[in-house]
Order: sequence, then structure tokens, then C-alpha cells
Amino acid sequence: MRAVDIIIKKRDKQELTSREIGFFIKGFTNGDIPDYQASSFAMTIMLNGMTSRETTDLALAMAHSGQVLDLSKIVDVVVDKHSSGGVGDKTSISVMPMVAACGLPVGKMSGRGLGFSGGTLDKLESIPGYRVDLTTDEFKQQLKDKGIVLTGQSLDLAPADGKMYALRDVTGTVPSTPLIASSIMCKKIAAGATAIVLDVKVGLGAFMETLDEARKLASLMVDIGHLAGRKTVALLSDMNQPLGSTVGNSLEVIEAVELLRGHAPADYWEHCLHVTSHVLVVGGRAKDLAEGRAMAEKCIADGSALEKFRVLVQAQGGDVSYVDDTSKFERAKYVEVVNAPRSGFISQVHARIVGEASVVLGAGRAKKGDPIDHAVGFIIHKKVGDKVEAGEPLFEIHANDEAKLAEARSVVLSAHDFSNKFVSPLPLFYE
Amino acid sequence: MRAVDIIIKKRDKQELTSREIGFFIKGFTNGDIPDYQASSFAMTIMLNGMTSRETTDLALAMAHSGQVLDLSKIVDVVVDKHSSGGVGDKTSISVMPMVAACGLPVGKMSGRGLGFSGGTLDKLESIPGYRVDLTTDEFKQQLKDKGIVLTGQSLDLAPADGKMYALRDVTGTVPSTPLIASSIMCKKIAAGATAIVLDVKVGLGAFMETLDEARKLASLMVDIGHLAGRKTVALLSDMNQPLGSTVGNSLEVIEAVELLRGHAPADYWEHCLHVTSHVLVVGGRAKDLAEGRAMAEKCIADGSALEKFRVLVQAQGGDVSYVDDTSKFERAKYVEVVNAPRSGFISQVHARIVGEASVVLGAGRAKKGDPIDHAVGFIIHKKVGDKVEAGEPLFEIHANDEAKLAEARSVVLSAHDFSNKFVSPLPLFYE
Repeated sequence: MRAVDIIIKKRDKQELTSREIGFFIKGFTNGDIPDYQASSFAMTIMLNGMTSRETTDLALAMAHSGQVLDLSKIVDVVVDKHSSGGVGDKTSISVMPMVAACGLPVGKMSGRGLGFSGGTLDKLESIPGYRVDLTTDEFKQQLKDKGIVLTGQSLDLAPADGKMYALRDVTGTVPSTPLIASSIMCKKIAAGATAIVLDVKVGLGAFMETLDEARKLASLMVDIGHLAGRKTVALLSDMNQPLGSTVGNSLEVIEAVELLRGHAPADYWEHCLHVTSHVLVVGGRAKDLAEGRAMAEKCIADGSALEKFRVLVQAQGGDVSYVDDTSKFERAKYVEVVNAPRSGFISQVHARIVGEASVVLGAGRAKKGDPIDHAVGFIIHKKVGDKVEAGEPLFEIHANDEAKLAEARSVVLSAHDFSNKFVSPLPLFYE
Repeated sequence: MRAVDIIIKKRDKQELTSREIGFFIKGFTNGDIPDYQASSFAMTIMLNGMTSRETTDLALAMAHSGQVLDLSKIVDVVVDKHSSGGVGDKTSISVMPMVAACGLPVGKMSGRGLGFSGGTLDKLESIPGYRVDLTTDEFKQQLKDKGIVLTGQSLDLAPADGKMYALRDVTGTVPSTPLIASSIMCKKIAAGATAIVLDVKVGLGAFMETLDEARKLASLMVDIGHLAGRKTVALLSDMNQPLGSTVGNSLEVIEAVELLRGHAPADYWEHCLHVTSHVLVVGGRAKDLAEGRAMAEKCIADGSALEKFRVLVQAQGGDVSYVDDTSKFERAKYVEVVNAPRSGFISQVHARIVGEASVVLGAGRAKKGDPIDHAVGFIIHKKVGDKVEAGEPLFEIHANDEAKLAEARSVVLSAHDFSNKFVSPLPLFYE
């Protein structure tokens, strides 16, 4: 078998066998197949696509390119919830403790933010001391002892994926549905999740801008999950405007903690309850969504979800006093409230533009490895469908630099559109 | 400007600017753009194509990746004739001396054979001492003094092309019309040719199997030539069966020399006269094809073409006594005449199969750098349309190994098809 023949086969739009995909990924992982063949292969997949079967084989081959965690001796079920990425998406920080509080073990490995899209690890690092670099043994031990882990991707899991992703980033092969799906799912499979809820974001602030693209990605990932023997469910949720009110690292952690205390903007509250119910059902803890929802509401009301988050923070070395008193989070030097320039109904708060403005402030990264500023960001006061009067507070900027503040102000103002007529609020979920 | 954005643009089927193409090739040549980006880029071109304008820019950028010879101070016109490669194609060896004998300076850099397709350099090296590694200075001096040079591609010409070709070979991006066209034309442009005749082969023993593909390649190369300010003409000629009677290195040199003496199979004779006439017209030496043909016939009849070949061989260090007495060429150990197994009309002599059989004998290379055996090959006695009686000589095998001889015998027999009904001879040229 030769790498070039596998490239040629996919170039000519033929379906690859499991053996061919396995051979390619194995060779790529151990260095027998050079980057220049892998990038050419990725481009053929990008342009000619892959079937569900091929994509599953690719995900499995990448999952097995390193260690695959078997957590069945530690816990019966391990649930994972994955978001495809968006702006203001702090869902994992609220949902994972809720699920764990309802008795389902949660072992999750998250990623960092890139570009307009934030990352759970960056957010959690707002809490002084919080470690995101647990070893595999620490991961297992904490899962067993505390029933909740929220850390970074372990280096020995799915090494082919890390190598492939770095290559895709510089060779124009990022936005390929089979490559995205297999990249996400290989990590879930390698990390040992047995029940997976996928939150696929759709809209201006998501990687998938149309419902059709998002549906394809979701259905492909569900197929992979099933073919790999994992219970998998996908939700399609809106990402045209930022989720909840905050965008930025510590600002989002504060909002997530507030939710665990029972206080949250309506959209974020509804989103978290919905996702949690699904996780509880797919994890076999609730018989249906209604029961799941009741459990989710109860764990907030009785404080057990908040307590689970405290346990998590403490277990991973974070200063839990920040959870108890969120005013301890370092505040940005400049906080400016920007008022509505006109009256009307909000017809758009462009999520991607807000996300990009947060990168300008320093809350995100323009490129991998850039440092980030945890204190800066935005508080969005009005959402699509809200009625606003000229002069009313529209949003708040938290910045550490005056020039960047000025730039962010004009950018985020331009992200808001107004209408004279009534505008319906955006749906939270599509399917 | 970033390489990845150029890849993305072509991936998304947009037309690249001259600056973008120039930036990419320059970066690739000097190592700023790594192989894994170049291979991904090549795959986007392979799958999404390029316009004539883009292909011309690519050819020019590759031509200018190294030294571009300016021969205008040495001679007024430099003609080059290029064949896209086939089986038994020894045309350059006859045509270049004919053209030079008619007073047009010929400075040609040729290639080696690969796979079923032979190469002029390998053939010329059958002549003991013949050097194919002239330096650029030697090239210029000989062009000035003798008016004829036939050597290998100089290393400092179009280095981007050599680098790109090596990469294409292992990344599934060889059969792309824009990449083939720009690769051929960049070398012609860099080598200083001002008038170019392209002989594009079509058929079973050519890289282009259909007339439509060949026509596209030819028209693209003509466009490139014109846009680069070179007089360019393309012919489409048949390569379903081997050209002339011989396949193999010294066997083909002998046939080419015999033509210069006035003796040649009808198809090869006609082919050389036709190509020569075109070269004389495009080089401005003849006013039309009829005049070109008369000049071509005259230079054979008066011996001046043969004398020009003697001059060439002598100038490049070859033993000219081999030209004067072709029986001096080393003969293969085994020469076997294979007779027709049945009577009928020849309906096929599959050029690619014969070419591949010549690789089995050792006349060609399975992969770059393999050594070759100059003495071995075939003499084909019957061509498509010929009537043959069972037991009549069909072809002759020249071999240095009995097992290979046996293999070649059965393969080349299978390359011949017979018909009970009359079969028309193949056309020599299509357009």
C-alpha cells in the first residue's frame, strides 16, 4: 500500500477502505507519511468529501493513533458535552456541574479559544490556580473521587488529530465537514466518553453559518458516535448573537456561576436547562427530557450544582473563594457603558463581530499561543427582539487599553442593527 | 500576503492574481513556503483548474525562479521542438539536425524517460562519449559556434519546476493540464527558445489519451507561449502505436540516423518532414509549409542534415564513428524474431504495452534514477492497417536476459490485435 495511491483514489472521488484510511493515519502519526502527503490528502477530502463510513474510520483511526482511555472500571457511564464553538458560549461551565450534581460522572477535555470563538480552558483559567493540564492518571483519579473533571486535551490522546489539525490550519483545509467531524469525535472517543451530547452552533458567530451545513455536521458526528458504539445526540442551537449577556473570560465565568445560583439571562438559562436535560437522558439518568429538566432545576434550587462546581475548582487547584465571591475577579481598568444611539427593536447583534472585537480587547487570540487578558470583554444588555429607547444602556465594554476600547466601541456598535418594526426574538434551538 | 490565503482562494475556485502566483512560487523556491503548503496548493489546481492567464503566470513565475537564458545576443531566433512523450518517439534526433541544416539555430534541453515513455537524453547516450550535461556557458558557446545543441536540462533553469515536479509525483498531482502545461512551458521559456513547436501526443501510449484532453493541453501551451511573447505552434499527433519501427535506445538512434540518410518507415518519415516544416515556418525560415517541406527534403537529399548531426555528436564529445557506421552500436545478446500467430489486418499495436515491455527489458526506467540498458528493445514490423500472413515476422526482440525476453514476447504479442476485415491505417496527425 502506498500513500500516493490513497491520495489518488480520493482525488478521483472513490471511497476509501478502512484499511487504507488506517494505513494513512498510522503512517502519518509515526512519520512514515510526510506532511506534504497528508496536506494533499486533506485537500482531496476537503474538495471531494467522505462518506459517513469513511469519516467514522478516519475518526477511529485518529482516536487509536494514541492511548484510548477505558474508564469503564472507574465509572459506569462517562458523559461529555461538546460545543462546536461560538461567542459567549460558557455552557460547559454551568452544565457540567449540573450534570455531575444529578449523579452522572463528567470527564471532559476542552479546548482553547481561537479567533472570534472562545475556549472553556481560557475561561476557567480566570480562576487563580485552576489547572487545565491534568495528567491522564490525575484525570482518572479525580473522575473516580469527585465525579467531575474539566481539563485540557491530554497530549497522548489522538496525537494524529493534533498533528493533522496543525497542518489543516496552514493548508486551507479547516472548513471540511468530514475533517471537522472526525477531529471532534476522535477526541471524544479517545477520552473515553460513552455518552455524548453535541451542541452544534449555527449562525453568524459559528463555524457553520447555515442550518444545512450544521445539520450535515451534526448528523455525521451522530453517525460516527453510533458506529463507534457511543450514545450520541446532537442539538442545533443559535449562534447569530452571543449566548447570554457576557463575552470575555472572567465575565463569562461570573455569568456561569450566577446561573448555578439561579440567576441568568433567559436565553442562557433556557439553553443550559435544555442541554442538561439531554445529557441526563443520553447518560441514562433521566427517562425523558421532562424528568431531566426537573432534575436540572432541582440541582440549581438546592445548591448541589454550585457545590459540585466548588468541588471541581478545588480539586483542580483553583481558588474557590472566587466562586463564593465573584467580585474578587480582577476588574478591567476601564468600564464604559455604551448607550443606544437610537430607539427601535434590536434586529441583530452580530456574534462574529462581537467575538472579533473581544480579540481586539485581548480576550481572545488572533493566533495560537497568543497571551490573553482574562478581565476584558463585553456585557450585552439587549438581545435580538428587545425594544430599546435611545440613550438606554446597550452594552458595556471592559477594557485595559483606551485605544482598544475606542476601537471595540465602534466595532460593537456596528454589530448592532435596529428596526422600526417589531422583530421576533431568535430561537434558541433549531432541532 | 499569506500562502494559506492563496491556497484557500484557489480551493474556493477563485482566479488568482499574477502577484499571488508569483508570491507563492517565489516563496516555494526559496523555502519560505514549505512542501506541505505547495502540495496542498497543487491539489487545489489539480481539482479546481486554472485559467490560461493563471497558467501563464505560473509558467512565467517558474521560469523566473532561476536564470532565464537570453540568447538574443548570440542568435536571432532559437527554435525548440517539444514532444509530450510517447513510445518510439525519436523525432528530435532527426528533426533538430534537419532544422539546423536549414539554417535555424537549435538549442534544446531534453529530458530522460520515465515509465513507458522514452527520453531523448537516454537515447543519445547510446553514442559512446555523448555528453548531456553541458553547462550554460557551453550551451551558449556551442549554439553560437555550431548552431545546434541537444543536452539535458540545466540545473539552474526553472528550479521551482524541478522541486514542484518531485512533489507532484508523490502527492497525486501529476495529471493536471495546467500543471503539465506550465511545467513544460516554463522550461522552454527559461531555456531561451523564441519559437516553439509542440508535438502533443494523443492515444494509448501518450499521457493524454483522448483528443479532447490533448487539444486542451495544446491550446493552453500555445496560449502560454503567446502570452510569454514566444512564437508557438502545437501539433496533435498519434501515439496509439509506436512511432516508426523501433523502441529502445540505440535502436531508435539508428532509425533516426537512417532517416537522415533518407531511409525510414513511412510514418516516421512523414512525421519528421511535417514537424520540420512547421519548425521552419514558425522560426521564420520558410514562408509556408510547402517551402518548409521542400527545404526539409533537400537537407536530407544533400546530406547536410546528417552532417549537422555529425557536428552535434562531435561537439558534445560523442564518438562520431557510430553515426558513420551504426553497426558499431552494441547489439543485445539475444535477438528473436516473433512471427504472426495468425493472418489478418493489424488493428492495434498498443503503444503503452510495448513501452511497458521495453521497461521490462531494461530499455526504460520503472522509477527515477534506475539504470538503463541501451541495447535492448523492439523492432515493430507491422503497423495498424498492415495485412499480415500467419508465420510472417511480426516484431523482433532485442534482449540481454532470457527470462525478460520471454516475458516481453508474451506482453508484446498481447499488444497486437488482428482483424479479419480491412483496417484503416492510423492518421499521423489530428490537427
